[in-house]
Formats: sequence, structure tokens, C-alpha cells
Amino acid sequence: MVFVGFGFLMVFLQRYGFSSVGFTFLLAAFALQWSTLVQGFLHSFHSGHIHVGVESMINADFCAGAVLISFGAVLGKTGPAQLLLMALLEVVLFGINEFVLLHLLGVRDAGGSMTIHTFGAYFGLVLSRVLYRPQLEKSKHRQGSVYHSDLFAMIGTIFLWIFWPSFNSALTALGAGQHRTALNTYYSLAASTLGTFALSALVGEDGRLDMVHIQNAALAGGVVVGTSSEMMLTPFGALAAGFLAGTVSTLGYKFFTPILESKFKVQDTCGVHNLHGMPGVLGALLGVLVAGLATHEAYGDGLESVFPLIAEGQRSATSQAMLQLFGLFVTLMFASVGGGLGGLLLKLPFLDSPPDSQCYEDQVHWQVPGEHEDEAQRPLRVEEADTQA
Amino acid sequence: MVFVGFGFLMVFLQRYGFSSVGFTFLLAAFALQWSTLVQGFLHSFHSGHIHVGVESMINADFCAGAVLISFGAVLGKTGPAQLLLMALLEVVLFGINEFVLLHLLGVRDAGGSMTIHTFGAYFGLVLSRVLYRPQLEKSKHRQGSVYHSDLFAMIGTIFLWIFWPSFNSALTALGAGQHRTALNTYYSLAASTLGTFALSALVGEDGRLDMVHIQNAALAGGVVVGTSSEMMLTPFGALAAGFLAGTVSTLGYKFFTPILESKFKVQDTCGVHNLHGMPGVLGALLGVLVAGLATHEAYGDGLESVFPLIAEGQRSATSQAMLQLFGLFVTLMFASVGGGLGGLLLKLPFLDSPPDSQCYEDQVHWQVPGEHEDEAQRPLRVEEADTQA
Amino acid sequence: MVFVGFGFLMVFLQRYGFSSVGFTFLLAAFALQWSTLVQGFLHSFHSGHIHVGVESMINADFCAGAVLISFGAVLGKTGPAQLLLMALLEVVLFGINEFVLLHLLGVRDAGGSMTIHTFGAYFGLVLSRVLYRPQLEKSKHRQGSVYHSDLFAMIGTIFLWIFWPSFNSALTALGAGQHRTALNTYYSLAASTLGTFALSALVGEDGRLDMVHIQNAALAGGVVVGTSSEMMLTPFGALAAGFLAGTVSTLGYKFFTPILESKFKVQDTCGVHNLHGMPGVLGALLGVLVAGLATHEAYGDGLESVFPLIAEGQRSATSQAMLQLFGLFVTLMFASVGGGLGGLLLKLPFLDSPPDSQCYEDQVHWQVPGEHEDEAQRPLRVEEADTQA
Repeated sequence: MVFVGFGFLMVFLQRYGFSSVGFTFLLAAFALQWSTLVQGFLHSFHSGHIHVGVESMINADFCAGAVLISFGAVLGKTGPAQLLLMALLEVVLFGINEFVLLHLLGVRDAGGSMTIHTFGAYFGLVLSRVLYRPQLEKSKHRQGSVYHSDLFAMIGTIFLWIFWPSFNSALTALGAGQHRTALNTYYSLAASTLGTFALSALVGEDGRLDMVHIQNAALAGGVVVGTSSEMMLTPFGALAAGFLAGTVSTLGYKFFTPILESKFKVQDTCGVHNLHGMPGVLGALLGVLVAGLATHEAYGDGLESVFPLIAEGQRSATSQAMLQLFGLFVTLMFASVGGGLGGLLLKLPFLDSPPDSQCYEDQVHWQVPGEHEDEAQRPLRVEEADTQA
Repeated sequence: MVFVGFGFLMVFLQRYGFSSVGFTFLLAAFALQWSTLVQGFLHSFHSGHIHVGVESMINADFCAGAVLISFGAVLGKTGPAQLLLMALLEVVLFGINEFVLLHLLGVRDAGGSMTIHTFGAYFGLVLSRVLYRPQLEKSKHRQGSVYHSDLFAMIGTIFLWIFWPSFNSALTALGAGQHRTALNTYYSLAASTLGTFALSALVGEDGRLDMVHIQNAALAGGVVVGTSSEMMLTPFGALAAGFLAGTVSTLGYKFFTPILESKFKVQDTCGVHNLHGMPGVLGALLGVLVAGLATHEAYGDGLESVFPLIAEGQRSATSQAMLQLFGLFVTLMFASVGGGLGGLLLKLPFLDSPPDSQCYEDQVHWQVPGEHEDEAQRPLRVEEADTQA
Repeated sequence: MVFVGFGFLMVFLQRYGFSSVGFTFLLAAFALQWSTLVQGFLHSFHSGHIHVGVESMINADFCAGAVLISFGAVLGKTGPAQLLLMALLEVVLFGINEFVLLHLLGVRDAGGSMTIHTFGAYFGLVLSRVLYRPQLEKSKHRQGSVYHSDLFAMIGTIFLWIFWPSFNSALTALGAGQHRTALNTYYSLAASTLGTFALSALVGEDGRLDMVHIQNAALAGGVVVGTSSEMMLTPFGALAAGFLAGTVSTLGYKFFTPILESKFKVQDTCGVHNLHGMPGVLGALLGVLVAGLATHEAYGDGLESVFPLIAEGQRSATSQAMLQLFGLFVTLMFASVGGGLGGLLLKLPFLDSPPDSQCYEDQVHWQVPGEHEDEAQRPLRVEEADTQA
């Protein structure tokens, strides 16, 4: 199930052409294998063997998701060797961060607001900061989208939208917990879609909508309930959180991304700060709030599966909330330090970084066919040409 | 499962560009939330709370499906404010119609031949009749499809084809009933695909096929067994029904849609009358027939889950068939009156209907990027341009 | 589940336009119905009735898969009447071959390395040999791909990649066996993706990647474990097999396909020899090896479900391995004789084969719209035109 959601994270990025969809595929295949090993060592290493199963597959998917989010920040500005090195480092740090949060701190984060979205986004953003290219406007004319590529991206958006409920609920306890997670995610997504449309029309010229907002911000509702969707968020809470996330994300694309580049020197190609960064942090904070309000009355027997430590009396709801907050800081720290370190590594000269004037350019890495339909596909054009001749 | 089928109803429409895929997304998100509320009040309102769950999600999906079918009839001729108002009204009427059919009349309609397809299609068609634009040929040159957009639409068709068996069987009883539903749908779809190809070649110039027929009529087999697929239709019955539906639908595209516009002043953009209207009515009539033939011998213990009222002896097979027929008339009445009312509402001047010359035009509602690939994606063209210069 | 994997085998081919996606759809719908009948007669014909169910649906899917593989070899060079005749013959032979292998010889082939991939590929290749067109270079200029069609094909690739684990495990025993199958397939696919990227860069000019390799060879990992994935292949074995398959397949596209055409007069449009032929044979041989190593110790209770005849002591592991090998020869024989026979049949003059100069040309079979966006979708162009005028 989850596998599909992950697959379309790739398709979603494909508007940037061969490199984008091809390298996504490469990174995903590499991250899946490498994270199975890394997480195997951390979680299920017994007597010299790593135990694998469906859960380790899903975990590896989640890790690949984080790597692809970071990829979104540096897209078009890095070569394949750089990307593989980035994935090599990021998978290890992802594994350690997740281990610290889920196993040492007992933090709950079923849909990965912290471990996947916040970690992936800030890792990528700090890395992009270190790799800052002041001369990037040389390639600026290649950065725009075109009509058909926007429709392609929309296929990815709709897929992710549809599979996000399964994605967030993949690792939750079966039964009532899983249903609650899926429903909360679903309400949040619906609300963030409405919020995005409303805001996009509001901030656009003449009230016209911007496709980039719809493609991205409509998904922010899935990110923002990543931590809290398995908790007692209530449908109303999910709707409010989703609407907020859609709004914040749309405003981020419109106003914050340009500032991020001009003032903070962070070049965020896909706007991961708006789709994953801010909604991820918001989602973590929402998780703090909802965890702090957990009571035996509200959850009943379900408390055991959502907050086992509270159910066993080892921890109060308030201390769970504090630990959730601490988990967010740990994640931000790991992401920033890791991203900085990664950026320095990726500056190594033998890694074949594309020059400023060749960014967002497929021809550096691919044998590219012509842009137009071949003759079989446009007989009318052939005739036209004949007539003209 | 069902969720996916619904998602691709959207993609299927995207050949009409940003507005079509974007507004579909907006309408779906709105209809999902609003119908959860409306259906919640009708079906599961207990002591001040609405009970939600997987079934209410599927029900809301079905309702969104009906809204999107109506959208198909008025596509390109309505603005977002008009569409949201249409959804507001249609969701309420859908809920009431479904409540009357399933709960008051005890009609069986698992795949929604009546409640979804017939209702959605005629609601949209009557609405389109009221909004008739005699000057629409001003925008006629924008109505055609292009090579790539037809391929996009084909992705949607294939997806819907694949998921239709799950769609029809989503709300049927687990076990034998669900298997029977899926198998009947599957045979019907396969037969309607063959029927469509045969007819399309037969009526086309020089025996050439028309992509529009394949995209649409191939799915008519799924619509036509919507009511009867959970019943004892038998594989042969499913094949015959599917072949008939594919045939009728293809003939409808070829001959009936032009008449519908010139004589009846109904401008049916996507041909919903051919894909949903006629096959939906046929499906309802097929349901009447199959219900009338139900016996204890044929169904055995399964009768309890398909026709509980017959199994309990409260109703004869004949009276069930009569009620199924009556359900069809109720649906047509609700759809017509609702569509007419909706059309009058949508004529309100402050709703920003696009002028005749701006129909099927994305630029009214969206910030549209250029049509061509950006430079990164077509280096050869750049070189060509240099040479020419 | 499997149903989806099958669906996208179609989309994968759609870069060749309307004919390719349309005829795939037609062939699939026809093969599904016809193989349900044929396999029903062979497997589940009791007292005058064919018993259908989910398993017969999956079996029919598999058969449709083999037909579509053969279609890949002759794509662009055959008309619809020829294709339907081919499917008519191939479905029968597929059914007989499968019956001989699985029921008479007791061969294990859960993912169909032999029955689906090897059979489908060599059937199509021999058929393509018989239909050899020496003058095909007249249509050569229509054979290339274009930027957008390669992105379309990549959607298919990613889908197939994602669903291949379910595909291979669809007919295996529930529980441990199914998990093992899915995991082995998954590791093999990941390894073949990495192998393909490495080899493609290695053999490309200036280390640049070729999209055709990525689209196809990345999937060879799924084919190569088709026989052995339900056996005790071990994750390391799966990784090695996948890497090997990706390598062989990429080299095949680069070096072997041109030789196949110039020396052996086999015109293999989609390169099915590289994606299905060679990996299928490799997979069958891998199955021989792994079956020969089967012991009671390694499988425990699972032996009963993977190799029931060995578990019951009726057969040794070595004789199982020999029979697996014999099964491969039977498959190759059926495929070659069948393909040859099919080729002769398809030469019948009344079947309307397209002339050499009209191959890979949609206009022979379809009413094709213009290549360009309609005006609604490119307002800027309209303005440009105005200015120029």
C-alpha cells in the first residue's frame, strides 16, 4: 500500500524532466537498499543476522521518502555522484535520528512529521545553503514549468493525495487506531485543498490561481497531521490543522521562497520548505499539543497502542508532550548538522557538480531525444511541411 | 481501494487542462467534506454526533463521483464559484435521493447505476440545458483534443477500468457476494471494450478508430452492471450487458451527442449522457430484470445479503423489481428538478460565469505558463534557433 | 492487486501513441475473456461448467501479460486483425504450455519467468522473424521517441516497479511464502535498477545515461526472480540476480538488439528480448539452481507449500531441478513452434497488414487530432500569431 505513495513522490517531481525522474528512481533504489541495512543494524540485528519483513520494507520506504524530500531542495544543481553521496550520509543520519526519537525518547510519530518531513526538508535546505550558487540566474530561464509538465505533476499530486491516508496509517496499530489515522489524514487533506484554492486565488493577480500552489500546498494537510493523526485529533481538529497548513504553505510559496533565496541564500528548487519544512514543524507542534491533552478517558483501551508509556503509568501526558517537543529539536539539530556536513562533502571537486550555466539541463547527464513528435505521430505536420516546401 | 477509482475520474477529465483537473480537485475536496456532513445527518446521526468510518468515507467518495459526473456536462462553461454552488446543492439532493432509494424503498444499487451515474448525468444535463449558450461556437475552436492530451486521458481510462471492479464491490457484503460483484464487473468491462472497438471501427471513416470512443465507451460496461453486479447476473449476462453498453455508448458519441446539442439544446462537454446517462438507465433496468428473477434456489444463503427483504419473506421478487423501477423514476425526478433548480441558481449574475468567447479557456482562471518546453528541456531547439538567426 | 501491474504493462508501451495504447487495451480485453475460457477448459471444467473466481482472474491476467509481451516485439508492424488472430492462437498455446509445466511436470513458476516472460518473448520474436520486413527502414524515422513520450513511459516503469512484488507473489501460498516472494522481488528490482544505471553510464557516450535502458532494464530484476522468488533465494541471492539481470538487459539494448536485426533478421520493436527473453531464461535457470538446493532443513514446514512433491517424498530436489530445466525447454519449444505458426497465419493477405512505409503510423488505424495544443491551451501562441500577422 504505502509503496505506492512513495512511488509517486517521484512522479510528482518529474516536471523537471529526465534527470529529475531518473535520479529520483536511482536515489530511491539506492536508499531502499542502504536503509534496509542501516535500519537493520539499529533495530533488528540479532545474532549476526538482520531480520527483514514487511515492516522493514515500509521503514525503508519512509527513509527513501526523506532522501527524496532533500533531493527536492537541491534538484537541478547536483550531479548523480553528489546525490548518491548525499543519500549515503542522509540514510545513516535518518536511521540514528529515528532510533533516538522512537526508541530512546519514546516519541510517537506514525506519519513522520518529524522523522521524515522536518528531517528531510531541513537536511536538504541546509545542504542547499552550503552549496549556494550566486550565479544561478544564468540557468534561471530553464527553471520554469510548461503546460504539459504541470499536468504531469498534477498526476503525482492526485496520487499522493489519495495514498496519503494509507501512508500515515501504515505503521499504526491495526483496528481503531488505523481507521482514526486514515480518517484524520483524509479530513486534513480535504481542508488543506480548500485552503490552498482560497489563498491562491486571494494572493494571485486578478484572483487567478497558480498551479504550483495547487500541486504542492494541497498536500500540506497530509504532512501536518503526520504526528498527530493516530492520536485523538478529532475530525474538527484535523480540518482546522489541514486548513492552516494549506494556508501557510501557499503563503510560503508566494512570499517566503523568494525571501529565502535573496536573504538567506537558500535556493529551494521545489519549495520543500513550504510543503515539508513548515507543515512538518507545525505537525510536530500539533503532536506536542495533542499528546499533552491525552487522557485515559478519551482513549479508553486505545491508549495502550498510541501511548504505551502513559498507559503503563511510566509517564504523564505532560512529560510525553515535553519529549515530543524535545524530539523536534533533536530532529532539527540532526538535520542541520547533517545537511551542513553533507554540503561540505558534496563540494569535493571530483564529484562532478554541474557548472552554473548548466543547471536544470538534462543534456549534461542524458542522451536527449528531440523535443518534437516523430513523424509517425504528426502526419499533419509532415503535410504542412510539404506544402510549405 | 475505491478511493483510487474516484481519484482517476479526475485524471480522466484532465485533457481539458488546468481548469479541468484543478476544479475537479477542488470540487472533490469540497464534496467529500460536505457529503460527509450531509450523509452523516441522514444516516448516522445519533445523540448529536455524526459517526464516521470507512463506510462513510466510501459513501462520500460515491457522492463526489456524482458531482464530478455533473461537472463533466458543464465543463468549460462554468466558473469555480458556480461549480461550488452546484456541488453544494447536488450533494444534498444526492444524499436525499440515496436515502429515499436505499432506506425507504429498499432498492439495491451497490455500484450506483441509479444513485451515482443516472443521478449525476441527468442532474448535469438538465443544468447544462438551463445554462444553454447559443453563441458557444465562438469557443468551439478550443474544444478539440490534441495528441498528448488524448494519451493523458487514456491513463485515466485504464485506471478506471482496472479499479471499477473494486468500485462496484466496495459496499457489497464480504465473501461470495463481493467476488461475484467483481467478476461480473470485470466481464462486463471486457465485453464493452470489445464492443466499443468493433463499433468505433464500423462507424468511423475508412474503418478508422476514434480515441474518444475508446476512452469513454470502454468504461460503459462498468456503469451498466452497477446495480446488478452483486446479483446473480451470470458471466454470460455480464458479457451481454457490457457489449450492449459499449455499443450504445459508442453510437451515442457518434450520433446522439450532436443531436442533443442541435435539437435539445443540451451542450454535453464530456459526453456524460453516453458514458453515464444511457448506461446508467440501462443498468437500472437490468437491475429490475435480474431482481425480478431472484429465487431462493439461485441465491441460496446469499439471498440474505443481496435481498434481505425477500429472504425474510417481507417482499416478493416481483415487488422488489417494481420498487427498483420506481427507484429509477425517483432518481430521474430528483436529478431533473435538482438540475433545473441548480441551473437557475447558477445564472445569478454575481457568480462570474465566463463569457461565451472565453469558454474552455484556462487563462480566465489560472496563471498559465508558456506552451513550449523551457530551454533546459530542448537544447536542440536552442541550437536550431541559433542557426536560423 | 496484480490487476494493476498488468494494467501498466499497457501504459509502459504507450510511447508509440494511439495504436500502441489502444491495441494493448483491445488485446488485453480480448485475451482476458478468451483465456478465461481456455484455462477454464484446461483447469476447472467440471460437469459442463467452468468455475471462475479470483484465481482464474489472476491467471487470465498473466496470460494477457504474455500476449502483451509478444505484442511488444511486433509493435508498429501489425494491424488489429493480425493482432487479434495472434492473441487467439497465443492464448491457447499459453494455456497448454502452462498446463504441461505446472500440472503434468509439477514445475514451480509463481512469477512466470518461464510461462509468461520466456514464452511471451520468444513467441513474439519468432513471429517477428517470420514477418521480417527488409524495407522497414522506410519507416525508421518514425521509430524514435520524443521527450514527453519518454516521460509517459517512465510513469509505466515506476508503476510496474512498484507492483511487481505483488505480481510475483499473487499466486503463492499466503503467509511466509508470500512475504518471502515479495521481499525477494523487491531486493532484485532495487539491485537491477542500480546495475542498469551503472552500466548505462558506462556504455553511453561521455558517460551519459540512456532513458530507454532505465525504462526497461530496471524492471529486469522482477523478471529474473519470477521462478525463484518464492523459494529460499536469500536476500543476497536476490540482489545478485537482480544486478546481473539489469546488467545483461542493458548490454542487450546497447549491443544485442542491433545484431538481432542485422544478423538474425528479428525486428524487436520494444526490445522484449532484453527485458523478457534473456532475463526470463536466466530466471528459469536460477529456478533450476535454487530448486536443486532445496532441503527440508532450509524450508522447514514451508517446503509443503513451495515444493509439495519433495515434501511428500515423491521427488528428490535434484529431479525437481531437472524437471524445471525440462520445463524451460518445453516452453521454448512451444513458443518457437507457436510463433512460427502464428507468423505464417499472420501473413494471410486479407488481414490488412500495414505496408512498409506506413509502419509506426497512427493515421492508418486512427482518426488523429492535430499535434498542437488547441487555442484554449495556448493563448500566448495566439497572441504571437496575431503579432506576426
